[in-house]
Amino acid sequence: MELSEFEFFRRLFPHLPQGKGVVVGPGHDCARVRSGNREWLLTTDTLVEGTHFLRPWLSPFALGWRAFAVNASDIAAMGGRPRFVLVSAVVPASYSAAALTQLERGIAKAAGEVGASVVGGNLARGRQLEVTVTLVGEAPRQRLTRGGGQPGDAVLVSGTLGDAALAVHLLKEGGKPAGSLFRRWARPQARLALGQELAERRLATAMIDVSDGLVQDLGHLCRASGVAAVIEASRVPLSRSYLRHSGGVLDFALSGGEDYELLFTVPAAEVPAALALQERVGCTIRQIGELVAGDGVRVLDTSGGVLDLRTSGFDHFAKRRRHRDRGAIARNLASGSKRRAER
Amino acid sequence: MELSEFEFFRRLFPHLPQGKGVVVGPGHDCARVRSGNREWLLTTDTLVEGTHFLRPWLSPFALGWRAFAVNASDIAAMGGRPRFVLVSAVVPASYSAAALTQLERGIAKAAGEVGASVVGGNLARGRQLEVTVTLVGEAPRQRLTRGGGQPGDAVLVSGTLGDAALAVHLLKEGGKPAGSLFRRWARPQARLALGQELAERRLATAMIDVSDGLVQDLGHLCRASGVAAVIEASRVPLSRSYLRHSGGVLDFALSGGEDYELLFTVPAAEVPAALALQERVGCTIRQIGELVAGDGVRVLDTSGGVLDLRTSGFDHFAKRRRHRDRGAIARNLASGSKRRAER
Repeated sequence: MELSEFEFFRRLFPHLPQGKGVVVGPGHDCARVRSGNREWLLTTDTLVEGTHFLRPWLSPFALGWRAFAVNASDIAAMGGRPRFVLVSAVVPASYSAAALTQLERGIAKAAGEVGASVVGGNLARGRQLEVTVTLVGEAPRQRLTRGGGQPGDAVLVSGTLGDAALAVHLLKEGGKPAGSLFRRWARPQARLALGQELAERRLATAMIDVSDGLVQDLGHLCRASGVAAVIEASRVPLSRSYLRHSGGVLDFALSGGEDYELLFTVPAAEVPAALALQERVGCTIRQIGELVAGDGVRVLDTSGGVLDLRTSGFDHFAKRRRHRDRGAIARNLASGSKRRAER
Repeated sequence: MELSEFEFFRRLFPHLPQGKGVVVGPGHDCARVRSGNREWLLTTDTLVEGTHFLRPWLSPFALGWRAFAVNASDIAAMGGRPRFVLVSAVVPASYSAAALTQLERGIAKAAGEVGASVVGGNLARGRQLEVTVTLVGEAPRQRLTRGGGQPGDAVLVSGTLGDAALAVHLLKEGGKPAGSLFRRWARPQARLALGQELAERRLATAMIDVSDGLVQDLGHLCRASGVAAVIEASRVPLSRSYLRHSGGVLDFALSGGEDYELLFTVPAAEVPAALALQERVGCTIRQIGELVAGDGVRVLDTSGGVLDLRTSGFDHFAKRRRHRDRGAIARNLASGSKRRAER
């Protein structure tokens, strides 16, 4: 199957009937379903050896921890609270009982830290190691999804971007990323408190977690909301580790993926209220742009020109272009429109 | 990891905290959780290429159908109604978009037939084809599980046993099983109506679905209930196809697995009421034995001797012993204790 087709399926299983009790169906970070007077968030995600990780990169405990966290991030993106966890693991015969115990402890530990319980598990043999976590979360009252952003809303993002993708890039090149970068990939922190605060205070109009990459995920939000976005590359939050180890390349931050930060939109008047949450939720929040009428995502460089983004998000299959001979962030930011004009 | 360790993990992920809202945790067919005034059943299961099926055996549609059905069977075993479905598929690059569409249609069709909706999907690349289905079902009022069987209760089973395992055996030997056998494996019918009737009428004291094999699953029920069971091999329901194609071997029916029939216990006085459900739920129900004090499962042959069961259920990894030189069912049934004595 060609990549574009695969991506189509990946984003939205088509042909899905929308049944009774389904409040939000496929195409968002979680499904939202109703039962009696309660609504629930449902999400599932699989980490596949060779696709999402290599075994030497992650201890079994860390793999379990990560498998929970990437799902919890989807719950966070809809403002929910993780409650119940199901695990389906496929393990090769070479995987030891000790490793499996650690894998499971990683899941249980990550779940326990946020008040969720592992309620069921399933184990099967297979040639490649895989962990599928399904999460059931309590939904907030606000039916917060990727749709709902309006022209004029500010675009905000939590934490810093690009660290995880840079770590994976360095790992793939056989290097050993700095601990601060590596942890951002290996132990992502779902922004549950932020998601819950935004939903409870009804500050956000739309939200998504950054799993595919900033530009790509903002594109999903824009499509679901029927709007366009303009962001400024210079406002994209970068960590000190990123600045030190990225060789000046911005691509990982713009398109790298696996950040598991929250990307959300708030009415312009609510920006101060959203920024004021930083201390309470324990992470930075930055405005990086705004929504406008139209479609698509434009990234502006420092001169106001539109950056030429030839990567469109983390892609498990396409070979990443090599970045060695590319310029520094400053050059990138200043010369986007110029480089484009030269072609 | 050794098989016995693996089986330990497969049956019951250990170290699982039992959290708030968890009514039934790991170790049963589904987890049962509470929210507000409602209770839900949660279950997940993965079909792995090379472990549970080979690609030539099943069309993509049939694979999808089956992936739903094996999960629905767990919901049936706790008397529930499937409502919401999450799918996580891992597909190799060689899998076509058309195949993926059919796979997904198979899941949606099977779900739609019983009033459930696919609410979310996730797709990733991997070397082996895998489909993980997670089901959320409405729980009946009765908290029916594998535990709860009492000495004196009758042991009943729906439908016929052994067809699916016999079909797989023939497929593995390169043969083409009769259509009636093959369909029992490829398109299992979760006994949802039966499970719901039993739970609503509070007839069953314990229930499990037959996925590992009659003797093994009855063993699970007995352990969870703290009792033993005695069943008569001659009462195990066999299909005409099974009798025609099994070469007289009873093993597939006793230990074959993947039948997805319901195995349940009812107080002796309720046996007529349970049997009376047959017409309403559209499948046969047979009493095959009873629960007694103690532990373990004994299978009696026609002379009242205890059959020597050297297989203890469907095992994905152990090589199935060859059955060609084994005797006919009648010989099997009559000579169990004799054969054992000779060794």
